[in-house]
Amino acid sequence: MKIYLSDNAYGKNAVNLSKIIRHKDFHEFRQISVNVSLKGDFETAYTLGDNTKILATDTQKNTVYALAKQYFTGTIEQFGIQLANHFTTNNPQISQATIDIAEHGWARMATGESLHPHAYLSTGNEKRTTTIIKNANGTSVESGIKNLLILKTTDSGFEHFIREQYTTLKETADRILSTECEVQWLYGTTDIDFEAAYANIRSLLLKTFAFHKSLSVQQTLYAMGEEVLKENSQVQEISLAMPNKHHILFNLEQFGMENNNEIFIATDEPYGYITGKLVRA
Amino acid sequence: MKIYLSDNAYGKNAVNLSKIIRHKDFHEFRQISVNVSLKGDFETAYTLGDNTKILATDTQKNTVYALAKQYFTGTIEQFGIQLANHFTTNNPQISQATIDIAEHGWARMATGESLHPHAYLSTGNEKRTTTIIKNANGTSVESGIKNLLILKTTDSGFEHFIREQYTTLKETADRILSTECEVQWLYGTTDIDFEAAYANIRSLLLKTFAFHKSLSVQQTLYAMGEEVLKENSQVQEISLAMPNKHHILFNLEQFGMENNNEIFIATDEPYGYITGKLVRA
Amino acid sequence: MKIYLSDNAYGKNAVNLSKIIRHKDFHEFRQISVNVSLKGDFETAYTLGDNTKILATDTQKNTVYALAKQYFTGTIEQFGIQLANHFTTNNPQISQATIDIAEHGWARMATGESLHPHAYLSTGNEKRTTTIIKNANGTSVESGIKNLLILKTTDSGFEHFIREQYTTLKETADRILSTECEVQWLYGTTDIDFEAAYANIRSLLLKTFAFHKSLSVQQTLYAMGEEVLKENSQVQEISLAMPNKHHILFNLEQFGMENNNEIFIATDEPYGYITGKLVRA
Amino acid sequence: MKIYLSDNAYGKNAVNLSKIIRHKDFHEFRQISVNVSLKGDFETAYTLGDNTKILATDTQKNTVYALAKQYFTGTIEQFGIQLANHFTTNNPQISQATIDIAEHGWARMATGESLHPHAYLSTGNEKRTTTIIKNANGTSVESGIKNLLILKTTDSGFEHFIREQYTTLKETADRILSTECEVQWLYGTTDIDFEAAYANIRSLLLKTFAFHKSLSVQQTLYAMGEEVLKENSQVQEISLAMPNKHHILFNLEQFGMENNNEIFIATDEPYGYITGKLVRA
Repeated sequence: MKIYLSDNAYGKNAVNLSKIIRHKDFHEFRQISVNVSLKGDFETAYTLGDNTKILATDTQKNTVYALAKQYFTGTIEQFGIQLANHFTTNNPQISQATIDIAEHGWARMATGESLHPHAYLSTGNEKRTTTIIKNANGTSVESGIKNLLILKTTDSGFEHFIREQYTTLKETADRILSTECEVQWLYGTTDIDFEAAYANIRSLLLKTFAFHKSLSVQQTLYAMGEEVLKENSQVQEISLAMPNKHHILFNLEQFGMENNNEIFIATDEPYGYITGKLVRA
Repeated sequence: MKIYLSDNAYGKNAVNLSKIIRHKDFHEFRQISVNVSLKGDFETAYTLGDNTKILATDTQKNTVYALAKQYFTGTIEQFGIQLANHFTTNNPQISQATIDIAEHGWARMATGESLHPHAYLSTGNEKRTTTIIKNANGTSVESGIKNLLILKTTDSGFEHFIREQYTTLKETADRILSTECEVQWLYGTTDIDFEAAYANIRSLLLKTFAFHKSLSVQQTLYAMGEEVLKENSQVQEISLAMPNKHHILFNLEQFGMENNNEIFIATDEPYGYITGKLVRA
Repeated sequence: MKIYLSDNAYGKNAVNLSKIIRHKDFHEFRQISVNVSLKGDFETAYTLGDNTKILATDTQKNTVYALAKQYFTGTIEQFGIQLANHFTTNNPQISQATIDIAEHGWARMATGESLHPHAYLSTGNEKRTTTIIKNANGTSVESGIKNLLILKTTDSGFEHFIREQYTTLKETADRILSTECEVQWLYGTTDIDFEAAYANIRSLLLKTFAFHKSLSVQQTLYAMGEEVLKENSQVQEISLAMPNKHHILFNLEQFGMENNNEIFIATDEPYGYITGKLVRA
Repeated sequence: MKIYLSDNAYGKNAVNLSKIIRHKDFHEFRQISVNVSLKGDFETAYTLGDNTKILATDTQKNTVYALAKQYFTGTIEQFGIQLANHFTTNNPQISQATIDIAEHGWARMATGESLHPHAYLSTGNEKRTTTIIKNANGTSVESGIKNLLILKTTDSGFEHFIREQYTTLKETADRILSTECEVQWLYGTTDIDFEAAYANIRSLLLKTFAFHKSLSVQQTLYAMGEEVLKENSQVQEISLAMPNKHHILFNLEQFGMENNNEIFIATDEPYGYITGKLVRA
C-alpha cells in the first residue's frame, strides 16, 4: 500500500511589521502581524528534499517588508491582496497563497481638546483580522475581529435546559454574559470599502450584543450574525466563536449574607465554547 | 435571500481533571484536560433560544468528572471513547460528540536506585493527545503529541532554493534544526493497544528526526510521517506541523571573530511553519 | 551553625472577583484580581508544622469575596485598606498584611449618542493597581498602572552614547519610542480622593510622554516621574519601569529602496529595560 | 522640596543565545536567556539626556554574544561572572553589574542503548538560573531553579488551622501537594564546582519533598531549605517560593458516588503562595 503526500503547506508566520505613514498634520502608525502560507507543486521538496521550487520562508518575510513600503497604505485587506498577488504572479509553482493579517489597535492620544499628532496609546488586545486566499478560483477575502472582550450585566438568562443525573447548574433568568468573541465574515467581492464595512460590522456586533435579550449564548451568537448578514449584502457568510467567560455567583449564604447577583468569581477554565456559522440560502 | 444556521457546535473546554489510581506498591497520578464538543439538533437553540434539547456545558463538565471515577483507568483514548459513547447514547438529539483530551506528563521521581511510590516530577510541556469523534459513521480515534520540542545540531542543511529579488538567506549545508512538533495520526480501528502504539510511534518520530540527513524541514517531516505509516499498519494517516524554531548565526565577524556554527540567536518570531499530511493510497 | 527562618510570608494570589453595583440608571461593572500576603508569628508553622495560628489561604479568599459585598463600592485603594484592616484587626498573630489589587478596565459601550446602561467593552490590558501594606507603622498606599502600552513615532532620538569594540548601533535623532510602562507611586496619606488622583496622574504621564523631546528612555522616564511629583504634593515617590519595545528599521536598501523611517520590524525580545525611582529630598 | 533620582538601573533583557560546543564524540547544545542590568554614574542620563556614559543596551547584547564564544564553555555561573567582570572592568562609570541567566534544559536523545551524538529533546519548563552581582563589595553568586513542577499524591495534610467566620475549608490528613517551585541559594564563594553543587542541591530538594511527611506547604518548604543548608556548607542562605497548585476534590457525593481521594479538579487560580528564606545564624 503506497504512502503519499496529501494536504501540505508552508510559509512564514508572525512577520511583525510596523509602519509610519506621514500625513500633513499627523503621523499614522500601523502595526500588523502577517502569516504567509503557500501551496503548490512542492511534493518533491517533501519526498526528495528538492528545494529548487521552494521560495524560502525568509524570502517571504523579506517580501512582506519590501511590499509594505509601497502597498501598505490603506486597509489590511488591500495589502493582503497585493501580497497574495505578488506570490502567485511571480511563482508559477504556487497554486494558492494565503495571507493572514492581524492588526494591532493604536489610537492617537487625546491631549486636551485634540488628538496628539504622533503619540499613541494601545487600544488593547482586540485585533482586526483578514485572511486572503488566492488560487485558480480567484481571490477570497474573509475579514474579522478577534479578542473582542465584551460583557453585559443583565438581559441574559439560561433556563429550561435538560436536567439529568449529572445536572447541578441552577436555572437563572439573570446572569452575567461575557465572551471574548472571534468573528470572521466572508465578503462576496474584493471591490468594496473595507474600512467602512469593518466599522459598520463591528458596530452591529456590539449593538446587537448590547440590546439582545439573551436566552443563551447560542441565541445571542445567532442574533449577532444575523444582523450582520441582514445589513451587509456584501457579506456572504459569518462565523462566530464565543467562549463563555463565566462569572459564577459566590456563595455568600454560607456566611449569612445575601448575594443578589452582586459578587462573582471570575473564572477562565473550564469554559463553555459556542460556535456557529450563518450563511445565505 | 434567507439566512440560516450552517456549521455549529457547543461544549465545554479545559475541563482540568486529575486522578490518583492506587496500585499495590505505588500511586499512579494522571492529569488531563478535556474538551467536549457536541453537534446535533440544536438549531432552535440558536434561532429561538429554545434550550430544551441543550445539555448544559456545566453538565458536560460534571459528566467528565463523574465518569472519570469508573472509566479513566487506562489510556486517554479509552476514556475518550467512553465519554463519547455516554453523550451520544443518553442524548438522541446529539448526532456527533467530539472529545479532545490532552494528558500532562508526570514521571515518578527517581530517588536513589528506585522510583518513589508517590512523588512525581513534571515531564514538561509535551502532551499526549487524542480526539475521539463519534457519530452515525462510527467512532474515529486520532491520537497525537503536541509541544514536542526537539533539536539537532547538525545533519541539517537548506540549499538550492530559489534566489530572487527579495532573497537574502545564505545557503547552508550545516545548520541547527529545531521544531516544536505537533503530530496527529488516525487509527483505522478502536480495537488496539493504544499505550503500545503511542510508545512505538513517539519513538519512531524521535529516531527518524535524529538520524535523518535533512535537506529541509519539509523532507524531515515527510520522513518522520513515512516511517510511522510504514511501521504501523493500524495507522491510516498522519499529519505533522513543524514550526521552525530558528537559531540564527550571530555575526561575530563584525568583531573580528569567526563563528564556526557556534553562537546563535534563538528566536521565536517570525517562524517558518511547515505542515504535511501523509496517507495511504 | 544554626539555621533559622528569615523573611517569610504566605497568602492567596489571583483571587478573581467581579461585582455588579446597581445604580439608578445603569449597572457599574467592576473586575479585580486580589493578592493577600500575611506576615507574623508563623515561625512554628514552618519549623514544626504547627498550623494553629494559620489563617488558611482558602479563608483569605473567602474573606475577599465576603468583604467585597459591603466594602467594594469605590476605589480599589479603599477596598484594599478595608481588607488589610480586617486581617490585622481579627488576627493578633499577623504583624503585616499586604493587599495587592489589579483592576481590569471595562467601559460602558457607546451605542449611538449615549452609553449603554449594562453592556461593557474591555479597555484592554492596561490595569490600575494598588498595594496596601498595614503593619505597626500604619498603612501605606502605593498605587499605579501596569501594561500601559504607549508609543510615539517621532520626537525621540538616541545619540552620543559610548562607541566601543562591541558597539554597532547607529546614532539616530529620530526613532520610534514605545514602552509598556509599569508605574507605582506612594501616597503620603490614606485620606485622599484616590479616583481623582489616579485620573490626574495617568493624564500627566501620558501628556509628558507625548510632548517630551526624548533624548533617551531614561530621560523620558525621569520627565514623566518628575511631572507627577511636581503636580501632586500627595505623592511622595514614584517608580517607573519602561521596557523598550523596539521597532527596528528594516533594511530596504538591500532591495534598492529607501527606508525613510517608514518600515520597521516590531520585536519583543531582547528588550531594553530602564527603571528609575524619583523621590522628594 | 527638591526632586531627585533614587534607585535606578538599565540594561538588556531576554538576550536569547544558543551555542554548540563540539566534543570529540558528540555535540553539546546549550541554550540560555541572559539579562544584563547596570547601575552607576547615570544620573545625568536621566535628568539631562546626557548619553555620554551610557553603554547602549544594544552594545550589552552584542557583548553577550561575543563573549559567549570564548567564555561560555562551562556553567552559567562561570559565564555570568565573566560578563559581570567585563562590564565593570571596561566601564569605570558602572558601579554594579547584575547578570541573570536562565538555562533551558536539553537532553541528548536516547536512541536504543546509547545517547545520540547530536539530537536533543527539551527537558521541559524547568530552568537552572543564576544571578551574578558584581560591585565594590565583590562578586556574589545566587543560583537556583525555577518552574520546578513537582507533586506528591499523599504524605501531605493540612489540619488544626484557625476556624473562624469565613473558614469553609475542611481539615484533611491526606491531600495532593503540588507546587511549581522557585528556589535561589546564595553561595558564600565564587570558587566552587557549580555543576556538582547544582546537581546535589536539586537532588536534595526533590528527595526532601518526596519523603517529607507534610503538615503544611510551609513545613515542607522549610524542610527542603534546611536540608540544603545542612548538606552544603558553601550555601549561605536559601529562598523558596512555593505556589500551591491546588487539586481540589470533586464532589461526587452529589451523584451518589464516593470520592476516596481519587478525582480532583486541577486549578490554576486562585493559588496559595508560600515563601520563606532560611539563613545561617
